[in-house]
Amino acid sequence: MTVNLKILAKQLNLSIATVSRAMKDSHEVSLETKQRVWDLAEKLNYQPNPYASSLRGQKSHTIAVVIPEIANNFFSLAINGIEEVAQVNDYHVLIYLTHDNFEKEKSISRHLQSGRVDGILMSVSSESNCGDHLRELNRKIPMVFFDRVCEEIDTPKVITDDFESGYEATKHLIENGCKRIAFLQISDSLSIGKKRKAGYTHALEEFKIKIDEKIILSRSENESENYGAIKKLVTKKNPPDGIFASTENLAITTYEVCKELGISIPEKLKVIGFSNLPTAPLLKPSLSTITQPAFEIGKQATLMLFDLLKKKSFRNRNLVLKSSLIDRDSTKR
Amino acid sequence: MTVNLKILAKQLNLSIATVSRAMKDSHEVSLETKQRVWDLAEKLNYQPNPYASSLRGQKSHTIAVVIPEIANNFFSLAINGIEEVAQVNDYHVLIYLTHDNFEKEKSISRHLQSGRVDGILMSVSSESNCGDHLRELNRKIPMVFFDRVCEEIDTPKVITDDFESGYEATKHLIENGCKRIAFLQISDSLSIGKKRKAGYTHALEEFKIKIDEKIILSRSENESENYGAIKKLVTKKNPPDGIFASTENLAITTYEVCKELGISIPEKLKVIGFSNLPTAPLLKPSLSTITQPAFEIGKQATLMLFDLLKKKSFRNRNLVLKSSLIDRDSTKR
Repeated sequence: MTVNLKILAKQLNLSIATVSRAMKDSHEVSLETKQRVWDLAEKLNYQPNPYASSLRGQKSHTIAVVIPEIANNFFSLAINGIEEVAQVNDYHVLIYLTHDNFEKEKSISRHLQSGRVDGILMSVSSESNCGDHLRELNRKIPMVFFDRVCEEIDTPKVITDDFESGYEATKHLIENGCKRIAFLQISDSLSIGKKRKAGYTHALEEFKIKIDEKIILSRSENESENYGAIKKLVTKKNPPDGIFASTENLAITTYEVCKELGISIPEKLKVIGFSNLPTAPLLKPSLSTITQPAFEIGKQATLMLFDLLKKKSFRNRNLVLKSSLIDRDSTKR
Repeated sequence: MTVNLKILAKQLNLSIATVSRAMKDSHEVSLETKQRVWDLAEKLNYQPNPYASSLRGQKSHTIAVVIPEIANNFFSLAINGIEEVAQVNDYHVLIYLTHDNFEKEKSISRHLQSGRVDGILMSVSSESNCGDHLRELNRKIPMVFFDRVCEEIDTPKVITDDFESGYEATKHLIENGCKRIAFLQISDSLSIGKKRKAGYTHALEEFKIKIDEKIILSRSENESENYGAIKKLVTKKNPPDGIFASTENLAITTYEVCKELGISIPEKLKVIGFSNLPTAPLLKPSLSTITQPAFEIGKQATLMLFDLLKKKSFRNRNLVLKSSLIDRDSTKR
């Protein structure tokens, strides 16, 4: 027997209309009545049709998290923060991966527009140019950006102090003796990429070190291309004595290259990277990092999203959390 | 026009009863006939699932992946394999996390029963006892298990050779001189946990080493409890000279404990762990691992799921892929 509204109504001695309103969490029904309806619905495992219910404006009690990748400890920690808040609110969390691919991001955005989630947490793909697909999605479904944001879209954002972190990392290398610092950047089209690079160049200028575009590399989605590019970089005639990697993967790849070539870190080359890698202290040598408060970013972004869902907030909030520089052996003098 | 059994029967010149049996993969119908029925059903986009037909034949073109955690390189690699196949089939992939919590897994199962996805790939939570929630889900929506499976549920499964891997890892430690090997186990209630442990005890018995339950630890969901338990283990009066960690996290925690206590690996303690950690070769010392073909597991499980979706396969398929032992410095003599 399929449980439907009629059966619920009969067992509860209520009208079908009242049960229907209760299932939609309508203010026209008292909380006690709603609770009775919800309890029986749960007991009988009543399942409203998801498509039909989105048409009727019923809540899905689901939020989507759209991120570029998961083999990255920043995102896995952020998701733990997201899930903590979602759990308290009795919401399900769906994770979508864009693999930093713009077409994939557009396709996911279209999919989400069908209304299967109540709200969206998004960290944009690095190929993304914050196009119309995100504007349109933001008009239809409450959305909060975190870490990789679209500055020009009017919705809450949770970010870290990327300019300051880029500056501090570079200054740290300079103060430990580096004179020629390469920058491995995430993407020139992302706001976090631009800010980290601006921090890097600002530090170089402050210490009167000439900026050399030949030792600024952009990340490829192809890991073996990154490997090849870093290998070429460290075997130049005039190689860098310091590397600032703006993602975790690029720092790991730098270690792999140095291991293969027998380049000793930190004696020949100092390395610092943005990273939430749990094994950073266990590497040979331990890796100095800029560590973002990933769990807190996820948590705060989700709190903001629930504020939006509860119509409790304006869209123009912007929260900046601080990263920390953790000084380990890879940047030792 | 809604495609129904009558239309299929007419076009194939078969009886409705035969078509119906073919769609249920009945042994009363020959494979050739079934294949003809399935091919036409696929061509006309016929949806036999009662829930799906209540959605008027609408497919969601979405599959769900239900996994315990994402801060684990096994799962992130498996998801890459899953997404590769889904992409080719133009399907979206949703990821749900159970955090190894049985209640969460039940809640997600109920959520999935509402029919918002066409198929499910699942790696069960370690608290799970393969209860009715999974049986019921499996009756309603095509499902494939991978890695952490429910042996008794009749649906395709993709696993690795956990018994053999447990045996090989333990034998490797013994052959490199260990006489007292601790086992850090994932869970006694999971089939993979039982098999890995059986491999461990089998190797000990073969080499006439007494099994000591006091040096077999079960993983807690609380990382600091694991830390404390391992610390207690390695500071026993009669401490182990080898540790076999059956998850990546437990191997990392072992390294952290040894770093804090100044216990040198591999001189004082040899360590091997199940792991897909990209930094395993870069650790101090590099970590010997049992490495599962995670990407391939995800890929094969998804191929099986699409076979199910296309009614091209039976439910009792079972694929076992081989893991490899990668011998590094942490187990050196």
